[in-house]
Amino acid sequence: MKPFADRLVEIVREKASRVVVGLDPRPESIPAEFGTGPRAVLDFNAEILRLVREHAVAVKPQIAFYERLGPPGLEVYAETCRRARDAGFLVIGDVKRGDVPETAKAYAEAHLETFPADAITVNPYFGRDGIDPFLATAKKRGAGLFVLVKTSNPSSKEIQDLDVGGKPLHVKVAEMTFEWGAELVGASGYSSVGAVVGATHPAEAARIRAAMPMRIFLVPGYGAQGATAADVAVCFEPGGLGAVVNASRSVVFAWERKPWSERFGAARWREAVAESARVMKEEINAAIIPR
Amino acid sequence: MKPFADRLVEIVREKASRVVVGLDPRPESIPAEFGTGPRAVLDFNAEILRLVREHAVAVKPQIAFYERLGPPGLEVYAETCRRARDAGFLVIGDVKRGDVPETAKAYAEAHLETFPADAITVNPYFGRDGIDPFLATAKKRGAGLFVLVKTSNPSSKEIQDLDVGGKPLHVKVAEMTFEWGAELVGASGYSSVGAVVGATHPAEAARIRAAMPMRIFLVPGYGAQGATAADVAVCFEPGGLGAVVNASRSVVFAWERKPWSERFGAARWREAVAESARVMKEEINAAIIPR
Repeated sequence: MKPFADRLVEIVREKASRVVVGLDPRPESIPAEFGTGPRAVLDFNAEILRLVREHAVAVKPQIAFYERLGPPGLEVYAETCRRARDAGFLVIGDVKRGDVPETAKAYAEAHLETFPADAITVNPYFGRDGIDPFLATAKKRGAGLFVLVKTSNPSSKEIQDLDVGGKPLHVKVAEMTFEWGAELVGASGYSSVGAVVGATHPAEAARIRAAMPMRIFLVPGYGAQGATAADVAVCFEPGGLGAVVNASRSVVFAWERKPWSERFGAARWREAVAESARVMKEEINAAIIPR
Repeated sequence: MKPFADRLVEIVREKASRVVVGLDPRPESIPAEFGTGPRAVLDFNAEILRLVREHAVAVKPQIAFYERLGPPGLEVYAETCRRARDAGFLVIGDVKRGDVPETAKAYAEAHLETFPADAITVNPYFGRDGIDPFLATAKKRGAGLFVLVKTSNPSSKEIQDLDVGGKPLHVKVAEMTFEWGAELVGASGYSSVGAVVGATHPAEAARIRAAMPMRIFLVPGYGAQGATAADVAVCFEPGGLGAVVNASRSVVFAWERKPWSERFGAARWREAVAESARVMKEEINAAIIPR
């Protein structure tokens, strides 16, 4: 399998899009026509895949929302990953796993082999030996990793912004992540080891960008969490590569929020989903052109 | 439901034990009589529960080893939790989850409600707003949390030992965790919000112990990872409370290692499991008496 970074660069160019759609099923928001239970989640996800296919390069199922449904939810997670791949999306499993070496190996096998994701998110708190098993499995499978460097939530500052020898911890973790990715650089020049960098912190994102050339950012926080296309622009490198931007609720449940609730309403929810993804794609592309 | 901390203190006194057995199924080590596949894991776990019932107060299934088996593995995880509770054990789900608030809420529901654990391990990297949903769910359910303060792996020093304003990050996280637990103090005086503190770092553990009075430590690293009863003694408070100690491979697969491999061998593996748990219990009790 071609390295994840190269596959991502290729599909970004093909689709002229940097959009990732977060598949975080909230059963209470799924249209009634899908019924209820795990099957409704799968069918709804399948419909979202169809609606955003032209505008998104990847999907990012957040596994917490599937775990909440118990083992049948994990079946839906696995089947959602498979269908997304079949539809030509890259799949980023948002699992944020991290543990001691023996356990990290089991997690790497679980989320890059048993469950069919192209990349996953991982937590750096354990240090290098907790990352090594993920690196080894990613290398073997042509898969990718996104290390949590600066998360999008307000309290991320409490630990991630602490000063560690003249720089914030998130810059230190960015430097560590840069090193961890050195052995997984593909033909595109990008490494398959990237970083999660919240768009809700644009000043920090700019500094992390400088510390991690030729590393791909997975940028959450767009839309429902408040970040705009201008906020995410700083996460890209000249040439318009180096980042993909995730939106979850603001696309998947677009018809519940302005301006789509007024323009389409619940009856035309499909149009709201497709149009919100299209506009997000174009807003981001427009914001990064001057760079 | 009575608060987790009070239930733990009670069972420690009843069984005169501080032993937690880690149920980390390694299919390649399960005796052939159990067959293969997820069913073998469940039946083996059930037998381990029977063998260590007299000596262990809690079990700690490490969910990575179940996720590696896919959705049927998660069924085994859930059923293992149920059977352990039915057998009178407390169940600590070793899930190490952590995320932004909306997702943390979904994880809290998944691992303290959908899956039947009495307590879970959580990752502090997101800060307070990523912990709040776990606190709220734990309070509602009488459940417990163990926050990762200092993990047992060698590379834990790379981030967790960084100096943050005159103290290592793990001491800062210990202080934060102490505060997070203030609202969940039970009748025993102990909080249901404890800390994961690796026995492989006794000097750091002593300092964390001082920073977190009346907080319960979940101590990994005993046995296969090299920590001894003397190393874990520092994690307890005077009176012999304040910590429980986990062993996984060194109990569950005791017959594969010295001295049990020589004394019992594979044919008498049941005796090896029970005896290793009994000896662990007594060694820890002996080590904490002088304190």
